[in-house]
Amino acid sequence: MSCHQLAPVVGDLGGNCELIAETLSSAAAGGSDVVVLPELATSGYVFASQEEAASVALSAAEVIAQCAMALSGSTTVAVVGFCERGEDGLLHNSAAIVDADGGLAVYRKTHLWDAEKLVFTPGSAPPPVVPTAAGKVGVLVCYDLEFPELTRQLALAGAELIAVPTNWPLFDRPAGERPAETMIAMAAARTNRVFVACCDRTGVERGQRWTEGTAIVDRDGWVVAIPGADGTAVAELDLGLARDKAISPRNDVLDDRRPELYQAVVHGGEVSQIP
Amino acid sequence: MSCHQLAPVVGDLGGNCELIAETLSSAAAGGSDVVVLPELATSGYVFASQEEAASVALSAAEVIAQCAMALSGSTTVAVVGFCERGEDGLLHNSAAIVDADGGLAVYRKTHLWDAEKLVFTPGSAPPPVVPTAAGKVGVLVCYDLEFPELTRQLALAGAELIAVPTNWPLFDRPAGERPAETMIAMAAARTNRVFVACCDRTGVERGQRWTEGTAIVDRDGWVVAIPGADGTAVAELDLGLARDKAISPRNDVLDDRRPELYQAVVHGGEVSQIP
Repeated sequence: MSCHQLAPVVGDLGGNCELIAETLSSAAAGGSDVVVLPELATSGYVFASQEEAASVALSAAEVIAQCAMALSGSTTVAVVGFCERGEDGLLHNSAAIVDADGGLAVYRKTHLWDAEKLVFTPGSAPPPVVPTAAGKVGVLVCYDLEFPELTRQLALAGAELIAVPTNWPLFDRPAGERPAETMIAMAAARTNRVFVACCDRTGVERGQRWTEGTAIVDRDGWVVAIPGADGTAVAELDLGLARDKAISPRNDVLDDRRPELYQAVVHGGEVSQIP
Repeated sequence: MSCHQLAPVVGDLGGNCELIAETLSSAAAGGSDVVVLPELATSGYVFASQEEAASVALSAAEVIAQCAMALSGSTTVAVVGFCERGEDGLLHNSAAIVDADGGLAVYRKTHLWDAEKLVFTPGSAPPPVVPTAAGKVGVLVCYDLEFPELTRQLALAGAELIAVPTNWPLFDRPAGERPAETMIAMAAARTNRVFVACCDRTGVERGQRWTEGTAIVDRDGWVVAIPGADGTAVAELDLGLARDKAISPRNDVLDDRRPELYQAVVHGGEVSQIP
């Protein structure tokens, strides 16, 4: 599988779509079975206004058609972030899961980050788990990953890989530490025994720098690939290994759950349900 | 606050209790407001049999009395892992939260690790959040920490610090990486904007080595203290800062949750509830 840390140009719909198509074609030709691209790869991220975002929005059908064509003749599955214009005209920060035959699912980001709230309508459906030739792929977008409820429910639903198109704004971090978002991805992978592939972007956009934190994480929670000089992170993964949740002779990260105890705590001797 | 990476001796109940009392007295005299000790600090960990564990088990009342006496004259709160004999004779891997006036809560580990399942009965109550002079303290024990449901529910219930007595068996990890358990603690801290204090142990016990991974983690998810040469990790924390869950002008890690979307996924176009 591969993650491609592209540098879309805000507002350049034609150029970005061309970059996406070239990247998908090339990755498919190279034999990558699962290809993850950044969040909002079609449009860029730092919009000056909702109107600007609307001017470069595409319908899911348009994105799916373009990506499927780029993948034609391959069995590659692609996860591509895009700026979606819904049937109702609302804008969504979405990810399309596509193969050469067409769309497998479209997910609308459900947890919006900061100024995205001024532009996008959050999704009203939970994230998908999509059976593919390579394995079962769950999808989240960027800040969604920071909600352990979502990574857990994707694992419970059978996701073997969680693909996460992202645009991670660069923040300071202590020397020697991985980006905070990567650390969260690692913990999500390990606590759920799933593979996680985060595809970040690069390129300064209207002064905004990016973490360039693209990382493929194995089910033990360790980073097994980051981008090379060409911006591409590549890993050979056997996604089926994620079906084994055992972590000791007597432990299984999902079977060990105690759902009857969750959503409650003890306060001063009394058990309270969490609202 | 402080975490004291002790080396209890398996089966040496008297010696271990003396070590605990000395540690608590000294930490309280030194002005530590919250003191965290390891899991099973009274008994050691690598039991040869359930009978051996039973032979060094104490009632919660006994542990609370000893710890309260060691803390007398202070306002220090201690979180101490111990091998508990319940009223019904069953053994539990427990943590007592104690101050000079007595017990504030007793928590029985709800997620048992490996051979612990041969010795202990898991707790049947959710973890507590205890109001203390230093702030609201939630408690988990070791492997509990790897269930994001628990850290989330403690944060939702108002915990500002999650204290985690642990005995982390040493596992290999890639060069340059923090222990996996630390990485999970960091992600839990950051995604919930709470402080987390994990107190591990040291000393080889029946061939078992320990991670010696004691770490105090701030609400941004960064490690702010690990043990010095004396085995003690010390940090000055304003626990009240954990009440602020904002992480951007428009984001709050708890308010941003979408509970209506959790426990469901989309499978091939159909939304399914997770059993």
